[in-house]
Amino acid sequence: MKSLSTATLANGKQTDVFLADDLKDLSERLGNYGRSVLWVFDTNTATLFKQLPPANVVLDSGEIAKTFSSVERILATAIDEGLARDGRIIGFGGGVVCDMAAFAASIYMRGCKLTLVPTTLLCMVDASVGGKTAIDFKGLKNMVGSFYPANEVLICMDTLRTLPEKEFLNGLAEVLKHALLSQDEHLYRFLLTKKNEILARNNETLQTLVTLSLAVKQWYIEQDPTETLGIRQMLNLGHTFGHALEASAHFSLGHGIGVAWGTCRALEAGVTLGITDKAYATGAIKLFKSYGYDIDYRIGRGDWIDFRERLMKDKKKMNGQVLFVLMESQGKAVLRPIETALVQHLVIAKPIF
Amino acid sequence: MKSLSTATLANGKQTDVFLADDLKDLSERLGNYGRSVLWVFDTNTATLFKQLPPANVVLDSGEIAKTFSSVERILATAIDEGLARDGRIIGFGGGVVCDMAAFAASIYMRGCKLTLVPTTLLCMVDASVGGKTAIDFKGLKNMVGSFYPANEVLICMDTLRTLPEKEFLNGLAEVLKHALLSQDEHLYRFLLTKKNEILARNNETLQTLVTLSLAVKQWYIEQDPTETLGIRQMLNLGHTFGHALEASAHFSLGHGIGVAWGTCRALEAGVTLGITDKAYATGAIKLFKSYGYDIDYRIGRGDWIDFRERLMKDKKKMNGQVLFVLMESQGKAVLRPIETALVQHLVIAKPIF
Repeated sequence: MKSLSTATLANGKQTDVFLADDLKDLSERLGNYGRSVLWVFDTNTATLFKQLPPANVVLDSGEIAKTFSSVERILATAIDEGLARDGRIIGFGGGVVCDMAAFAASIYMRGCKLTLVPTTLLCMVDASVGGKTAIDFKGLKNMVGSFYPANEVLICMDTLRTLPEKEFLNGLAEVLKHALLSQDEHLYRFLLTKKNEILARNNETLQTLVTLSLAVKQWYIEQDPTETLGIRQMLNLGHTFGHALEASAHFSLGHGIGVAWGTCRALEAGVTLGITDKAYATGAIKLFKSYGYDIDYRIGRGDWIDFRERLMKDKKKMNGQVLFVLMESQGKAVLRPIETALVQHLVIAKPIF
Repeated sequence: MKSLSTATLANGKQTDVFLADDLKDLSERLGNYGRSVLWVFDTNTATLFKQLPPANVVLDSGEIAKTFSSVERILATAIDEGLARDGRIIGFGGGVVCDMAAFAASIYMRGCKLTLVPTTLLCMVDASVGGKTAIDFKGLKNMVGSFYPANEVLICMDTLRTLPEKEFLNGLAEVLKHALLSQDEHLYRFLLTKKNEILARNNETLQTLVTLSLAVKQWYIEQDPTETLGIRQMLNLGHTFGHALEASAHFSLGHGIGVAWGTCRALEAGVTLGITDKAYATGAIKLFKSYGYDIDYRIGRGDWIDFRERLMKDKKKMNGQVLFVLMESQGKAVLRPIETALVQHLVIAKPIF
């Protein structure tokens, strides 16, 4: 197991990210934690074990489990198992499992130890590092949560082998987003030139991809761990449009697809407002398309009211106005409000270029 | 309204404590927050207003409201009212109201603004400053929560006028505890010499009492905001014994009574173990008695198993052993395990000196 990076986050807490050689390497590490641990799986990741560790919670798989009742189940089991404040919760799964494990860890006795083992590409490059935890509440995505960085994140590419194609593309959308936000063009060029190896999930290629992508995320979150300085918010590129799309489709579309679609809408908005260079936007949208995302998707006219209402619930608000992340150029993002008429035009009209 | 102090707490966040001259002064300040606020009351404090502010939640009064469902009610109302991340939750009431308002504020959109208006002595000197929030869970006190300091705490002695005697004594127990933990003897001597004025709730006397008491708490919490360095834990003097007593009595006794009783048990334990000076312990126990606390109370033999089990759920554990705060001398506390036989002797036997 090799050390990938150490991120210094909220409250000065550090997250150590490790890359496991294979599943055996991963198991050895996890076996070393001893007894005062509680494991959190979902019905998918629980099947990866011949025999589950004794103290465990198995959540339903998918966004449906991002609820208070999942968090309460974890907390109740922790109490039943006598987990102390110096005990550890291990989240073993995708973003939902890691979010639930982390949110529970953040409030169990006001905070216990936390290890995350992300088993999806999305969770590896996004949810597992950065300390944001959340549940969906009253039909709104990530409305309630906390900042609570994991003590350790253990990444093992072997866990991606059985990941469904749609899930893989969910994660890749965040990688593409990070490529635009990166201060250099390394990741962007890697995505342009290594498409076949990436889609074939070549182990070594994915290691590089995840490492480059995490470095971009880390650059943003270390400067602004609790998202109060307007820097970390840039990682929400594509998410304002994307979350509203996801929510109005009742979360059936998948997070990454929403982000890919939303990022392209933000690029188009930037071009229209004279903020984004047109050639840069066109190139980036082409890159998204080359990975198979349905960028040309538009919502039906009848769904506009619902979409707009969900958009208005976005957390990035100032003085009542929703703010969007728009790109000036490679690695340079800004927060801007967008007039409702332009939003409507972008999400229900034909593509504008 | 005058500024009392500024405490720098978890995550570098500051809590400004203000002392209002009277209710009018308090109202003016609260009126200045504008519209993006949500008020939290309980059925007692809600009656202090002729007309409640439009966005409000009124919780049941008492420990029974320290639940997830109270927190969920606050969060749901915040969403219904369109409260943004830069909005503010105002907790107006005692410890339970302030804890629920603060816990909800800590997880609403991963944290919104928070103002606390403590209306009990206990909450003024304890819960409102320090950033600890919690709910009871599975019958265990403060088992789930977060560290989330308020932006502002507004103290107004006029709110204490109608406080029942038992509630007043609940708060006074924490003041007495702070007197033992203080680095100087100022507060201890104030309690010795001003008993009549304190019990008569003389406005000016209470202002001095609260100011001195808060200064002690602040000394401990500023050095160790998230209770990871073994300093802040000293504020738990009396709480390990006290919580177990409260819990085994199903929270009917009141927090302060438990703390007073628990502090005296800890003083006795310290004397038995040769840690606490006997004359110091005798004097301190006498001070508690002089304020009317039932220090000689002992649990019935048949309640011992239940008491011990609740004691074992205490959060201050290391390697499976519960740690107790014991006093070496004025202002000098240490964390020590205590043998079960001695605990049993202290809580069910006759007083030992």
